[in-house]
Amino acid sequence: MTMRRFIIIGHTATTSGDFSLNDLSGATGRLDVLLRCVNSALFLSHEMRRDTEIRLVLLGPPNAPKTIALNGAEMKHLNPDERSTAALLKAALNKPIFGSSVNAGAGISVSRATFKVILANAAKDSKIIALKEDGADIRAAGLAPPLTFVLSDNREFSDDELQALKDAGAEFISLGPKSLLASHCIVLVHNELDRKES
Amino acid sequence: MTMRRFIIIGHTATTSGDFSLNDLSGATGRLDVLLRCVNSALFLSHEMRRDTEIRLVLLGPPNAPKTIALNGAEMKHLNPDERSTAALLKAALNKPIFGSSVNAGAGISVSRATFKVILANAAKDSKIIALKEDGADIRAAGLAPPLTFVLSDNREFSDDELQALKDAGAEFISLGPKSLLASHCIVLVHNELDRKES
Repeated sequence: MTMRRFIIIGHTATTSGDFSLNDLSGATGRLDVLLRCVNSALFLSHEMRRDTEIRLVLLGPPNAPKTIALNGAEMKHLNPDERSTAALLKAALNKPIFGSSVNAGAGISVSRATFKVILANAAKDSKIIALKEDGADIRAAGLAPPLTFVLSDNREFSDDELQALKDAGAEFISLGPKSLLASHCIVLVHNELDRKES
Repeated sequence: MTMRRFIIIGHTATTSGDFSLNDLSGATGRLDVLLRCVNSALFLSHEMRRDTEIRLVLLGPPNAPKTIALNGAEMKHLNPDERSTAALLKAALNKPIFGSSVNAGAGISVSRATFKVILANAAKDSKIIALKEDGADIRAAGLAPPLTFVLSDNREFSDDELQALKDAGAEFISLGPKSLLASHCIVLVHNELDRKES
């Protein structure tokens, strides 16, 4: 069962699979930021986090929005490096989407759902936590799974996104005194939950 | 001044620059593990950690040992992605080494020093902390910078390395109940120190 879900908004991330694996940080609208989030969300040292799911909300051209979901419980061909993860996402983005969502390999699906719809669905089965620098300290928060954590990429949440989070009953949580990369934030969230559950 | 230093042992990591940037996780003796450690050690959200240094101890063929040092205070051309970091390391590994160490671009140097020598030098100006799963919990440890944290890659420390750590007066510290990737460990260490210093 998915007890931990991460939703990452990629404000400029490409929605086409037409990019080169040799220029992931240049030609993909910073899809590279999201690749590192996948690593943080799904990898332990020698195994995968089977209780975790990550959804990448891609808002860049040419076909926004698209959301790629990676489900730790079902993943088979994921490796920790950026390039091989990018190859999986590229294949997913090249799939024509009929209906609400299509399977794009073991544990991977892609849909045309908007952030609001993704968030509303997550709120049905979990508490929504948004990571924001002026939120309450995670170490003092009473976090009871199932939980969905929402993060922005290298940009701030937009006003519309903040409103959607508030409408979904989100709690705003922070991780410490420094402004951190989204992928680093995910590592800290996992550690806090690992400690609370042990 | 360097207040936080990370030393990562790459037990099989290549000591030659003769590798393809298109196969970083296959043909480099898992240099990719170390690339992710560089990202974790040196990046904040929109700036670099100028008080941090990372040393990659490369023990793979054909020219072991080599140690590449990246100094946050002086770094200029580092980006968060694996491929561009690999390009910097490749250039460093292609430098002929005369004397004890050579400069390989802003903030980067490469030497033929052994792990023991690297460790002994670090012990001169900092307390040595080794990250190990059966160590004391970092949250209960009294960590006063300057500190040098020693991590292994995807393998355990060897008996020789453990002995060298003990000889250097290392304290053994753990980060939580799960076995984590080295790059994720570095994120957790930084956060703990950020909190203690704030």
